[in-house]
Amino acid sequence: MDLSSVSFTEKKYNNRLLLTQITALLKSGSLFQIRHFIHELYPAETAHLIESLQPEDRKKIWAVIPPDVMGEILVQLHVEVAKGLIEITGQKDLIKAVESLESDDLVDLLHVIPEPLYSKVIASIGVQERSRLEAALSYDDDTAGGLMSLDVLTVQATQSLDEVLQDLRRRTFIPKATDNLFVVDQLDIFQGVLPLSVLLTRDPLVMVAESMDSSIEGIPCQMSAEEVALLFEHRDMLSAPVVAENGRLLGRITVDDIVDVIRDQADRSFRSMAGLSEEQDMFSPVMISAKRRAVWLGINLVTAFMASWVIGLFEATLEQIVALAVLMPIVASMGGIAGSQTLTLVIRGLALRQISGINAVQLFKKELSVGIVNGVLWSFVVASIGGIWFHSIGIGLILGGAVIINLICAAFAGASIPLILQRMDIDPALAGGVLLTTVTDVVGFMAFLGLATLFLM
Amino acid sequence: MDLSSVSFTEKKYNNRLLLTQITALLKSGSLFQIRHFIHELYPAETAHLIESLQPEDRKKIWAVIPPDVMGEILVQLHVEVAKGLIEITGQKDLIKAVESLESDDLVDLLHVIPEPLYSKVIASIGVQERSRLEAALSYDDDTAGGLMSLDVLTVQATQSLDEVLQDLRRRTFIPKATDNLFVVDQLDIFQGVLPLSVLLTRDPLVMVAESMDSSIEGIPCQMSAEEVALLFEHRDMLSAPVVAENGRLLGRITVDDIVDVIRDQADRSFRSMAGLSEEQDMFSPVMISAKRRAVWLGINLVTAFMASWVIGLFEATLEQIVALAVLMPIVASMGGIAGSQTLTLVIRGLALRQISGINAVQLFKKELSVGIVNGVLWSFVVASIGGIWFHSIGIGLILGGAVIINLICAAFAGASIPLILQRMDIDPALAGGVLLTTVTDVVGFMAFLGLATLFLM
Repeated sequence: MDLSSVSFTEKKYNNRLLLTQITALLKSGSLFQIRHFIHELYPAETAHLIESLQPEDRKKIWAVIPPDVMGEILVQLHVEVAKGLIEITGQKDLIKAVESLESDDLVDLLHVIPEPLYSKVIASIGVQERSRLEAALSYDDDTAGGLMSLDVLTVQATQSLDEVLQDLRRRTFIPKATDNLFVVDQLDIFQGVLPLSVLLTRDPLVMVAESMDSSIEGIPCQMSAEEVALLFEHRDMLSAPVVAENGRLLGRITVDDIVDVIRDQADRSFRSMAGLSEEQDMFSPVMISAKRRAVWLGINLVTAFMASWVIGLFEATLEQIVALAVLMPIVASMGGIAGSQTLTLVIRGLALRQISGINAVQLFKKELSVGIVNGVLWSFVVASIGGIWFHSIGIGLILGGAVIINLICAAFAGASIPLILQRMDIDPALAGGVLLTTVTDVVGFMAFLGLATLFLM
Repeated sequence: MDLSSVSFTEKKYNNRLLLTQITALLKSGSLFQIRHFIHELYPAETAHLIESLQPEDRKKIWAVIPPDVMGEILVQLHVEVAKGLIEITGQKDLIKAVESLESDDLVDLLHVIPEPLYSKVIASIGVQERSRLEAALSYDDDTAGGLMSLDVLTVQATQSLDEVLQDLRRRTFIPKATDNLFVVDQLDIFQGVLPLSVLLTRDPLVMVAESMDSSIEGIPCQMSAEEVALLFEHRDMLSAPVVAENGRLLGRITVDDIVDVIRDQADRSFRSMAGLSEEQDMFSPVMISAKRRAVWLGINLVTAFMASWVIGLFEATLEQIVALAVLMPIVASMGGIAGSQTLTLVIRGLALRQISGINAVQLFKKELSVGIVNGVLWSFVVASIGGIWFHSIGIGLILGGAVIINLICAAFAGASIPLILQRMDIDPALAGGVLLTTVTDVVGFMAFLGLATLFLM
């Protein structure tokens, strides 16, 4: 592959190209070339590449990464991949990696580090910083408290803008994504924000109290990460203050962490639908991967045997009319597809918090109507084909009847299963599909073979 | 419902609670109360609520929204929902709605507005602004050009920081998400960025040329929105310059638009897996919804009839051994589940740009290994249960053999189908599932009934 023909911009920005290049280098390049290649990347880009590679290649890359960059890469990796690399990292390097991190990243990483290393890392941190960290560690990962960083710039309402500007000028560093300074009183109670844009455009002699926006409220530290994400999305925020119940400013959430929350949430839903909720690592070892998926296959096997049992109830009928065995998968399959359309729509609505009480009933009615319309339409088509194929009006009518019944049941099940699961605090994306299939298989076979036994025997 | 018991913060932030409140108000509240309720919300929050409601309720809410806010709400709505509301909005109100928008939002909305209104809106815009807009409209929605806003603050490398600060102070307004000022030369060629944090912390007498970061490159206007999103994610950016091929600065992309890209992309993949790719509106009219889903059901019916045709080939065998009809759905179902696990993993990897050439082969091998391991494991279980149920070692062995064959084929198909579809420029999330099911159904029935015909007849 000739890399020189690719323009610089394209080379740096195209993720698939980066992957092709690094795999080529891993195959035939020198350690020096690999190191040079990785050195050009941002930590998150390196993390993204590492996740794309199989374990042996990950180790090769990890070996050329300087310890002070390791930390930033580790926090960007999925937990499973990060754990694999932590295992092969020397203790000294890990402590160096941890030391280079900002507080929110450090908290994330500490969740992954195993004992006894964890205690050693904690011990290597100063006392004051340690107590702050331990407070941060007490928040659940999936809450505003778990998302927040402790690096916050605060000002007092009694300062003038000029004083604030001078204070800033004395600092050499302003935390990333700082669009607002937070105004607090002497007890650290959050009072409002002072946007940098106001600071830059208003008369410096004006007081903070007169320039600040006190309509902004702090985010309660217990709010779920998903609600926080919707809030950032809806209000186009870059950063937001997190407060304790008494109003004390605890920290700050920045939009880059929200981007990760949205990506992770979407990724989890997508994987959950196939029973892969735990499989974060594309290249997890074969046996681990097989074991996880076996659980899902086992659960589905129970469903499949239930369907078989239903069919078994009608062995006598099947012995008489073998055409039924040929056509019965059609009924189950149509129900499964129609049901999963409704299921997907409802799960999506729940994830976006767009379903609640009253409109759930309306949605339910709408989905049932769609089920009836498509049931009537397709039962007609299926009945015609089935009837002609087996030269039997009876078989056609029964096939059509079973399809209507199953499509209506499918709409019913597809709409109600996620709502019930949500009530029971079970992830609908994870368990919804298998329950739906159980319903559509059992109802499908039961309706078709039952109708046949009643009318054709 | 007693709303007074809910704390202010909770009331404002909980999306599900907002929905319950507005549906209660729509049922029994006055127009004044609804107006007051909506007035407290951000445009995107109103949009989110509108999407949660059925069409009649949407109209009620739309009627209380002032025209100058309509524009900002419309751009936040899914196209389908927005079109429905545009239809019932008076022309004067729509022009007012359009006038209040920033350029990037205006471009988005113009994509949705039908003729002859479109021409009237374009005519109502000043000549200079119009030519800028028409340039922006020429970019594909899914590219950096389509995402960018034209509101950019530029400075020259030859200015001092103090001059820049004074220029800023003369403005009353700084565009949202401005963390960097863009440095351009006299021909508008992009040269680098001047971070606000540098502007605030460095000596004002220093020149822009000495303070700017010229390592930042502009994003080519043709880059795909998905690549831009990965770039923002990996580099924690808040805003980025978009440039033409000759390096001229064209506009600016901000992180809030990236958040929408990520959410939309994830939403589309999720819906596509159930053939709902066009169904953006939870409450689209029953007949429209039924029609769209009918297409998907029809495609799947072809698959189902293919499976039936395969079963039909073995009618003679089924007539002899009716137990085969009872057990055959198990083989197809296990294959479908295992295949969709592999399929999901590969589609996800492709969407994240983590699969390319060499590692595709490695992933293929790994998935095949997982398929073999689970094939062996579950064929043993299935064979035992089937054999005991029907008191036949022969049936058990054949069931087990068919499960192994189908699980290996499922892994093969699950890994290769998305790669092939991607090559053919077809969305793997949309078409992958139905193709996979075809394979696992056909192979499953063929293997099971074929083996039975060979060995039991």
